[in-house]
Amino acid sequence: MTRTPLTDLDEVQLLDTTLRDGEQMPGVSLTPGEKVGVARELDAAGVHLIEAGSACTSAGEREAIRRVADEGLNATVTSFARGVKRDVDHALDCGVGGVNLVVPASDKHVETKVGSTRDEVVETTVELVEYAKDHGLWVEVLGEDGSRADLDYLERLLGAGLDAGADRICYCDTVGAADPERTAAVVSRLADLGPTSLHTHDDLGFGLANVHAGLKAGADTVHGTVLGVGERAGNVALEEVAIALGESYGVDTVDLARLYRLCRTVSEATGVALPPNKAVCGANAFAHESGIHTDGTLKDGTMYEPYPPETVGRERRLVLGKHAGRAGVKAALAEHDVAVDDDELREVVARVKELGERGKRVTDADLLAIADDVRGRERERHVELVDLSATSGGNLPTASVRLRVGDEERVASGTGAGPVDAGLEAVRAALAGDGDGERGGEDGADGGVAFDLDSYHVDAITGGTDAVVTVEVDLSRGDRSVSVSASDADITRASVVGMVDGLDRLLAAEADAADAEPGAVADD
Amino acid sequence: MTRTPLTDLDEVQLLDTTLRDGEQMPGVSLTPGEKVGVARELDAAGVHLIEAGSACTSAGEREAIRRVADEGLNATVTSFARGVKRDVDHALDCGVGGVNLVVPASDKHVETKVGSTRDEVVETTVELVEYAKDHGLWVEVLGEDGSRADLDYLERLLGAGLDAGADRICYCDTVGAADPERTAAVVSRLADLGPTSLHTHDDLGFGLANVHAGLKAGADTVHGTVLGVGERAGNVALEEVAIALGESYGVDTVDLARLYRLCRTVSEATGVALPPNKAVCGANAFAHESGIHTDGTLKDGTMYEPYPPETVGRERRLVLGKHAGRAGVKAALAEHDVAVDDDELREVVARVKELGERGKRVTDADLLAIADDVRGRERERHVELVDLSATSGGNLPTASVRLRVGDEERVASGTGAGPVDAGLEAVRAALAGDGDGERGGEDGADGGVAFDLDSYHVDAITGGTDAVVTVEVDLSRGDRSVSVSASDADITRASVVGMVDGLDRLLAAEADAADAEPGAVADD
Repeated sequence: MTRTPLTDLDEVQLLDTTLRDGEQMPGVSLTPGEKVGVARELDAAGVHLIEAGSACTSAGEREAIRRVADEGLNATVTSFARGVKRDVDHALDCGVGGVNLVVPASDKHVETKVGSTRDEVVETTVELVEYAKDHGLWVEVLGEDGSRADLDYLERLLGAGLDAGADRICYCDTVGAADPERTAAVVSRLADLGPTSLHTHDDLGFGLANVHAGLKAGADTVHGTVLGVGERAGNVALEEVAIALGESYGVDTVDLARLYRLCRTVSEATGVALPPNKAVCGANAFAHESGIHTDGTLKDGTMYEPYPPETVGRERRLVLGKHAGRAGVKAALAEHDVAVDDDELREVVARVKELGERGKRVTDADLLAIADDVRGRERERHVELVDLSATSGGNLPTASVRLRVGDEERVASGTGAGPVDAGLEAVRAALAGDGDGERGGEDGADGGVAFDLDSYHVDAITGGTDAVVTVEVDLSRGDRSVSVSASDADITRASVVGMVDGLDRLLAAEADAADAEPGAVADD
Repeated sequence: MTRTPLTDLDEVQLLDTTLRDGEQMPGVSLTPGEKVGVARELDAAGVHLIEAGSACTSAGEREAIRRVADEGLNATVTSFARGVKRDVDHALDCGVGGVNLVVPASDKHVETKVGSTRDEVVETTVELVEYAKDHGLWVEVLGEDGSRADLDYLERLLGAGLDAGADRICYCDTVGAADPERTAAVVSRLADLGPTSLHTHDDLGFGLANVHAGLKAGADTVHGTVLGVGERAGNVALEEVAIALGESYGVDTVDLARLYRLCRTVSEATGVALPPNKAVCGANAFAHESGIHTDGTLKDGTMYEPYPPETVGRERRLVLGKHAGRAGVKAALAEHDVAVDDDELREVVARVKELGERGKRVTDADLLAIADDVRGRERERHVELVDLSATSGGNLPTASVRLRVGDEERVASGTGAGPVDAGLEAVRAALAGDGDGERGGEDGADGGVAFDLDSYHVDAITGGTDAVVTVEVDLSRGDRSVSVSASDADITRASVVGMVDGLDRLLAAEADAADAEPGAVADD
């Protein structure tokens, strides 16, 4: 596709407001340490400006802003400030390099919210810009609710800010009410006054469309938040601005290869989950399940992807389910060193699809169980759960298991933070020859079996206290790993069954590999 | 704001592909019953066309499509079909009213994927359109990967489809690679040929921006999925298309007041959670936490909202956290009939903010505990958890509790689907005077206390088996309800503590209300 230029600029600056606008999201609160961690990642990605918080909020917030400002980042660190002198003083107190000075612009905000008049707001704005500039701050003046403001007044207000010495002005679609036409109309007039930023929200889904319209109309800087966290429907997602400008128009913003890492950092800090179907960061953004897509992707990686996953620091993933086809299933079996003939493949595909149709995710363990069955392999279990009991609720959650390991029965118990954690400890203890519970490293010399629990995941539970819970675990031993899921209304049982089944699969794969190469000695 | 017309049309048709494109999302699989449930909701909202699935996938899929087609909906029910006769036959077999006939358009798809030539594809397309029309089907021809296709060829291919009798053609940005300029360039030429639909994906975040550009360029129908479910980053979200067109341009699509309900239905059926910061359906879309926003919203509901929540069938919500201000806290206390003076309010606000800064969501129970403490109220607990023990892992999860209820200690046990469910039963049994465990309805005549568990929620667990789990419960008795959260690495303990604390709050509120109106007799 040929590129149509969007802007004359080679580079658009990004102001990240994850730590301010994003943190105003209900239920999200970052400690000073978390703010510093996010700011470091933003800086490493090359974000130009970081709005670290709102200094007027509280002493704790000022402490957090101060710590970010003291980090010695390349980015300019700023604080949000309302149109009152006290807020600018608080910002100065934190040692930031600049302020995002927010003054009411629409009559609704000027009159109803602040109880002021247009003239008074202009006067205060001029005073505060001069005050902040006198104290050496970089100043951006934001006209709050600007998209719903009278355009002549907005021009007068922000023009007065520039005349008073402000470094730039910002078009604020505070409530996400504007469409691209309105954005273009307002921004084209503001950009005639001076350097103009865009601050858009996603209430109508137009967050990025308005950034597009605003840059076309002459803006040169974009405010955004990682994952689009923020009040209501959130701000425009910074990672989407970056990939859209880079891929579609060849406009530089930040280091794209750090975007995924940045998204994960913000997800962990805020507790906001990565939606599976979200550009750049979603679990499925580069995953392919359906037969058509998987087949095409195996032939040519760009078949069903707009850009390679490596661009944003990720990898492609093929997954199995009801839309699985022959090519995808064959590739997945090969990953586990399982070879099947054409008839067997046809049968495995049919059964994978059948399982997918029952609404189940098809894990490695599911695929391997189907392949065994189709190949008529009477698989002997290497590890099996015979009995499980866990006590919780009190001070010392405890679990005990009886496992069959080969021909031997082993009983062990363990304690943990909760019933599931205690169950894991009991499994480890049963598998350790000496009761020590080897972790990760070497197997014991005494018949102990080491393994790593690489990930433990339970989807959000919302159905009630008797909802069936699906537990997904990834286990590994050495270079081999396996994914397993188990479902039960009893979370303890689902978790332990999943772990034991996964471990059984790993041991079976090792035994198969040893059989296939009679001369070779297994690592363990 | 004045409206700039986007299209000459008063109404844009929506084709929902949640049941096809959405269901191709990895990990999502709908049973025939779930498909029918979603289709009914789509139809009730007034969606014009429902692509019910891909008939070639499997016998189970055909069964599902057949059931949707047999529902007698107002919407036209269609099936996806690849450019092979077998697929059209499968669709006919299901009794659908139309087919979405997908044929390769870009050279990458024509040559590498299908191993065909441009001429052959045109020929097959013409044959299949004629075949489908001869069998009475409504036919839409989609040029797969059209946004990356040679435009002259795309015109030739889709033009041939229209000449052969197709009802409409579709611009497919199959991999979400196009920007608004490319979309406008392609769609303006296709719309000259005949009625044109838009099928956009969100890989660059441009899903809705491209719908906007495509409608402006002459398209008249939009494909989308509820919640934007779909492969990779998903399709454009149908609810965003509907609200954006309605609010910004006064263009009709579907019944907006049913959008939220529709989103919840699809979330439940697919298991895809509603992201908190998502337009229309997110938990925060109409929630306000920060002091500035809450204060403004209490003065005028439209202050921080682009349109009233009732538009999409929702309600406004004020929540408390680190950005809380006086107005919001006062309003929240009033909801629980708690009056405070100015000094007390200042102190409650400070402590709510402090709690919020520690990263905690501030629930009703938290707020009330702070208010009690500030007002120097030595609160006596009505119900308290003294002891808890639960056994799980085996066949009969069992729990026992010792509660202090007033001056009395009560011990009871219960069984359930898992340790948490057993814990809830034990609490119910302890509170029931006769051990029956009254549910919801009337309290027992024997000192029993009835309550409803309105919701039980645990966020996704990803940190490992020893992660701290936060349980959020909503409990109610009669007209009174309360939200509580409790955190513990032991999920059993967190759940039961949350329930008991919530119940205690409800009983305390009742006792206060009875004290305040000495003449009144409490219901129980």
